[in-house]
Amino acid sequence: MTVTIIGTGLIGSSLAHRLRETGFANRLIGVDTDTAHLQKAIELGWIDEAMPLAAAVTLSQLVIVAIPVDATLRLLPELMNRAGQAVIMDVGSTKKMICRALEDHPRRGRFVATHPMWGTEKEGPEAVVRDAFKNRVAVICESERSDPDALQLVRQLYKTIGMSLVDMEADIHDRHAAYVSHISHVASYALSLTVLEKEKEEDAIFELASGGFESTVRLAKSNPAMWVPIFRQNRENVLDVLNEHISQLQKFKDSLEQGDFDQLTRLISDANKIKRILK
Amino acid sequence: MTVTIIGTGLIGSSLAHRLRETGFANRLIGVDTDTAHLQKAIELGWIDEAMPLAAAVTLSQLVIVAIPVDATLRLLPELMNRAGQAVIMDVGSTKKMICRALEDHPRRGRFVATHPMWGTEKEGPEAVVRDAFKNRVAVICESERSDPDALQLVRQLYKTIGMSLVDMEADIHDRHAAYVSHISHVASYALSLTVLEKEKEEDAIFELASGGFESTVRLAKSNPAMWVPIFRQNRENVLDVLNEHISQLQKFKDSLEQGDFDQLTRLISDANKIKRILK
Repeated sequence: MTVTIIGTGLIGSSLAHRLRETGFANRLIGVDTDTAHLQKAIELGWIDEAMPLAAAVTLSQLVIVAIPVDATLRLLPELMNRAGQAVIMDVGSTKKMICRALEDHPRRGRFVATHPMWGTEKEGPEAVVRDAFKNRVAVICESERSDPDALQLVRQLYKTIGMSLVDMEADIHDRHAAYVSHISHVASYALSLTVLEKEKEEDAIFELASGGFESTVRLAKSNPAMWVPIFRQNRENVLDVLNEHISQLQKFKDSLEQGDFDQLTRLISDANKIKRILK
Repeated sequence: MTVTIIGTGLIGSSLAHRLRETGFANRLIGVDTDTAHLQKAIELGWIDEAMPLAAAVTLSQLVIVAIPVDATLRLLPELMNRAGQAVIMDVGSTKKMICRALEDHPRRGRFVATHPMWGTEKEGPEAVVRDAFKNRVAVICESERSDPDALQLVRQLYKTIGMSLVDMEADIHDRHAAYVSHISHVASYALSLTVLEKEKEEDAIFELASGGFESTVRLAKSNPAMWVPIFRQNRENVLDVLNEHISQLQKFKDSLEQGDFDQLTRLISDANKIKRILK
């Protein structure tokens, strides 16, 4: 199958790599306004060739949109107008605004709204991870609006690269994405700013930073061009969970200020319950 | 050399493993009130034998205290009274209260106050990591109060297991430990509580949790028996950095509430500067 990947960053390139490796695709065409990414993706063998959007789409049975969610929202209606019978899927971290923007599109059936729950803080085709996506969950939203053949192709794609599938309404997806992904990024960005602020006169001290710090601050390396549009499209849910997070931190602060170490012990024991869920 | 390890949890057992592996110790004696840990540490080969404290100490040239910092504070003065010429070192995450408690002890010179900056969220002898400590930093505090031979032995130990050494005043250590370690734990505990609160009626949704969430919440599995005493002994510094962290989160909240995405972009770009420091 010929597949076009629009956006040859981390997600697009990692998908391209897995689709070739599994034999799902035999020809991979890259489209990107970032010519450095495109060139690198060819060099590394993730895609076979670069092409302008219009030419690539007419050659492809499947078009994967793997660009920031604001650009996705702008591109999709136009792209669907010119994609003929090709199946189009996106892989963005927000789903409600995209599904809403397309709900009355005459070719809505050719589109499948998805979110494979995998990523790293790195970017670009050089950051490809070889077993990307494996054993993770891919969410498909509003599958009843997709044509059965389009849905089947996309489900097959995700199964082929080792993902489990979950069907979900777009607004429910966005709410849970705020809880299990977006808030982690906000917390990590804020932690980075906190420590940079505190340590600004003493760079050398970072040599003390242990593995715990690194894992907590890792996400703070993530690029604003990807994340600001996500926060913008999922603003209400992110604000809701951020308010909760600030109020939880306030409880730690109150316990410390009052020297209430029994309360602090209870808070930590409750937080430990995450072990039941994440191994 | 015969070495006694008081506390056969993650840190004590990982140290025992590395000291044997490098040939630094040829006899390792474990002391622990937790008999399950002690038994397991023998079974896994981290220590050779278990012994009561008094007997172990008289046989050893080096005694390593690897128990929670509140227990360390209670144990050390008494331990130093009966340890003869043995060198005693602790490995606790706070240094000021311990150094202060011992500053006038008649045998202060036999003690070396240290903090090897390594750990995981797991506990017990089964959680031993084989290349633990390697390429991390070990802090030694108030080294001028230790006898030269005691200091040299401890420095040699850390170099042998692959650590770099940093000398630091105890209060400076505690301040930086709050920044690069303790606040990450508070943030992670609070994030765990946030998400558990938000998802409490929908456990299944955790299958969505991606790698980013896991790494940010990993530290929230850490045990209160270890962490409450750390927060208690380092309360002022932790509160100081926690206030800063809450005010940074507030900036994200304000940007989102006001829909000021330029400000949000600036915050994230500033947070990205952590890349210059952590690879």
